[in-house]
Amino acid sequence: MVNFEFQNPAKIIFGKGVIEKVGSEIKKYGVTKVLLVAGGGSIKRNGVYDAVRKSLDNAGIVTSELWGVQPNPLLSKVIEGAEICKKENIGFVLAVGGGSVIDTAKGIGVAATNDGDVWDFYMGIRSKIEHCLPIGVVLTIPAAGSETSYASIITNSDGNYKRGIHDNIVIPKFAIIDPETSYSLSQYQMACGSSDILAHLMERYFTTVEHTELTDRMIEGACITIINNALKAIKNPTDYDTRAEIMLTSTFAHNNMLDCGRIGDWGSHNIEHELSGSYDIAHGAGLSIIFPAWMKYVWKTNPAKFVQFGQRVWGINSYHNDAEYTVMQMIHRLEDWYKQLGLPTRLSETGIDSSQFEAMAERALVNRENGLGNFVKLKKQDIIEIFKLAL
Amino acid sequence: MVNFEFQNPAKIIFGKGVIEKVGSEIKKYGVTKVLLVAGGGSIKRNGVYDAVRKSLDNAGIVTSELWGVQPNPLLSKVIEGAEICKKENIGFVLAVGGGSVIDTAKGIGVAATNDGDVWDFYMGIRSKIEHCLPIGVVLTIPAAGSETSYASIITNSDGNYKRGIHDNIVIPKFAIIDPETSYSLSQYQMACGSSDILAHLMERYFTTVEHTELTDRMIEGACITIINNALKAIKNPTDYDTRAEIMLTSTFAHNNMLDCGRIGDWGSHNIEHELSGSYDIAHGAGLSIIFPAWMKYVWKTNPAKFVQFGQRVWGINSYHNDAEYTVMQMIHRLEDWYKQLGLPTRLSETGIDSSQFEAMAERALVNRENGLGNFVKLKKQDIIEIFKLAL
Repeated sequence: MVNFEFQNPAKIIFGKGVIEKVGSEIKKYGVTKVLLVAGGGSIKRNGVYDAVRKSLDNAGIVTSELWGVQPNPLLSKVIEGAEICKKENIGFVLAVGGGSVIDTAKGIGVAATNDGDVWDFYMGIRSKIEHCLPIGVVLTIPAAGSETSYASIITNSDGNYKRGIHDNIVIPKFAIIDPETSYSLSQYQMACGSSDILAHLMERYFTTVEHTELTDRMIEGACITIINNALKAIKNPTDYDTRAEIMLTSTFAHNNMLDCGRIGDWGSHNIEHELSGSYDIAHGAGLSIIFPAWMKYVWKTNPAKFVQFGQRVWGINSYHNDAEYTVMQMIHRLEDWYKQLGLPTRLSETGIDSSQFEAMAERALVNRENGLGNFVKLKKQDIIEIFKLAL
Repeated sequence: MVNFEFQNPAKIIFGKGVIEKVGSEIKKYGVTKVLLVAGGGSIKRNGVYDAVRKSLDNAGIVTSELWGVQPNPLLSKVIEGAEICKKENIGFVLAVGGGSVIDTAKGIGVAATNDGDVWDFYMGIRSKIEHCLPIGVVLTIPAAGSETSYASIITNSDGNYKRGIHDNIVIPKFAIIDPETSYSLSQYQMACGSSDILAHLMERYFTTVEHTELTDRMIEGACITIINNALKAIKNPTDYDTRAEIMLTSTFAHNNMLDCGRIGDWGSHNIEHELSGSYDIAHGAGLSIIFPAWMKYVWKTNPAKFVQFGQRVWGINSYHNDAEYTVMQMIHRLEDWYKQLGLPTRLSETGIDSSQFEAMAERALVNRENGLGNFVKLKKQDIIEIFKLAL
């Protein structure tokens, strides 16, 4: 186990009907004016917006609204929101939506309060973020785990960079999570979300740090839970407890608690960011393509870790202590799970060809001279090989 | 899953050599004078006191010191510490030790800042704690989990009551955890600690709430980790990673994260509090006696939960789907684990007879008219029957 510091002060308010608490929670921060950030309007159709509006009105909170945040959220929206905050003297940013909306809200909180170009933080050119407006979240899509995470991932369409801030200063003050809000999501949205949740767990699981028994076992338990409940959610989309398991797993998968004493990989996520930064593909669908390819490319670096994952999470009996058999079976089961969810497992299924492999590999390594990922430090040719395995 | 709110802002600073950070951490709170609370002096023998002292001196922090906190810590020590804080205008309480020291520090933080009798909070006569001095922890004994918990358990020798405060206001600001500090603990102290850690997990596990898959599985992983590593620590008391697993499990077992969406039992803990409030027995040794007896008394209320625990945690194959067989095997294995650690599993081993059963059962129910515990609401006769099973 390696030395670590962990702190996550976000308050989780979870369950049926909890949206009515949003107004009183924000009031605790002594702010009078809030920027409500949202996506394309689904929250107006499923009743979430009305419930939020009612609670804010009851608490006497005045809001401005920023709509139109898209999947793979754009820097331009962050800039737009920050300008509203500065112009209207706004003291709190409320994200109502999923990861894209929350990541945008975090970017706005930073851009509105720090001098200079906010993109420099995303590119790692500047590291010390001094200020951030307080952020609150009403979650509607379980996936990104951004509701209590220290990350904000934004795409800069100028250069197709998709990069992240990772700083405790952007952790939301509270996350209001009512599993019923997810009933209106499409099966494909739930599948993409489940893929992202499992990926957050697997990125943490595959570490080169030894002696991580507690967090190994807790991650394994969370993996089994998302694997089971993603399949259940397809069969019964309005089963409350299934949705509750998925939403809680989404949060725990990404609040950094399961990182304690270990160092995650994040190679697959960063390769996928190039994919969804360059093509119109959902993050969860990109992950279901990239993660198995990454596994095939790197597993021999530490077969025991992959065998353990296969045995404990996927229930594979090791046949004649044959590591390769166990690992290949595990990857096969993982791909089968993605397929059951209706997700692609090969680039060819999505119409993506090899023409951008080299460009994406190069872009992934900008400002990352040591290589991508920690389990294996991937260089340009490694990334291209992983893309090829994913074809 | 039931609705819940969860927040634990404590900062965990974990690993080799981290004690040197205590001074700079306290400085962040802008305080000039600190009350250092400690036990019988073991921290002077194992070097922890010197390391703390050096860090505080380097940071220019002035301290008063309160020594002599004992296992099953006393209200009188809380009052003594609070009087020092008030008299010397102290703004921060630093606990250097294990659960007793930390629980005392929390009590001091409350007693020094709220009007009236602090014991009223412990007895549940007053519920709203308005203030608490900031608390910091340098942990030396993994067991109570008090380093990031919202609980403080104190014994009032006037009436032999052992009762607790449970309020987020007493959660420490930081917990500095260096697993090497535990090397000097006796095998018996480590055994008692491991028993307490497993008990914290089992209290949470046995819930009447249904559909708690994620937290079930995470608790199971933590149970397996403490079971494995407690035995390893006996064989190799200075193996860093074994100690690290135990200390991290201790913290996660009791920071309320594993409570999310469920309602724990706490019957065994509260029965044990009467035992160690009345007799000179360590909390962990009381738990190794009471918990198996409690299981034998209540398991038929929900056999499936106990079978799941036996299968997933203790690896018992259910023989002919015979729940009773599985549960009895599980209790047998649990008792065997306690014995391997050198802990008692019957009152008779400790010289405690039945003479106080009725008095302890009555005292356990004072101000708890609805009964003790949640898995089964135990009445007076139930508690006496559990004591009898423990004889």
